[in-house]
Amino acid sequence: MYLLVVYDVGDTTRLNKVHKFLKTYLHWRQNSVFEGEISRAQFNAIKTGLKEIIDETSDSIMIYRLPNKNYLSIDIIGIEKNPIEFIL
Amino acid sequence: MYLLVVYDVGDTTRLNKVHKFLKTYLHWRQNSVFEGEISRAQFNAIKTGLKEIIDETSDSIMIYRLPNKNYLSIDIIGIEKNPIEFIL
Repeated sequence: MYLLVVYDVGDTTRLNKVHKFLKTYLHWRQNSVFEGEISRAQFNAIKTGLKEIIDETSDSIMIYRLPNKNYLSIDIIGIEKNPIEFIL
Repeated sequence: MYLLVVYDVGDTTRLNKVHKFLKTYLHWRQNSVFEGEISRAQFNAIKTGLKEIIDETSDSIMIYRLPNKNYLSIDIIGIEKNPIEFIL
């Protein structure tokens, strides 16, 4: 499956933890945006891990999930902060 | 088509302009994240409008585009800042 994760975390310590955690599974694309192809097991690990890091009463993480990347087109306006071609 | 727009805009004036502009086409979901169903004409208008607002040498806007919302599943961890059910 293909994931796109965007997060809104208020506290800097938790923010850094979320960034560091997501980096182990996905590609950083932009400020508070990660994406990448993962397995079902990794998807579950991401959800569990994020729940442990964030404050569920104030932070917000949205995980957009697609069957695969084929359905997705990406347009970038302005600069591309971290082109995915360089990572894969 | 279904759009998901995430932006990383450094300057507060431009940031507010981007937010205000996107609000006329899409639903605000989270800090710097908008989404919604739009037409091809609206998609072109969004791209043109954003190019006029941002500084293309420093800001970054990513537009993720899907044929429709059917392929998309959304999981939210923590709080849901602006549930789409309340807007539609």
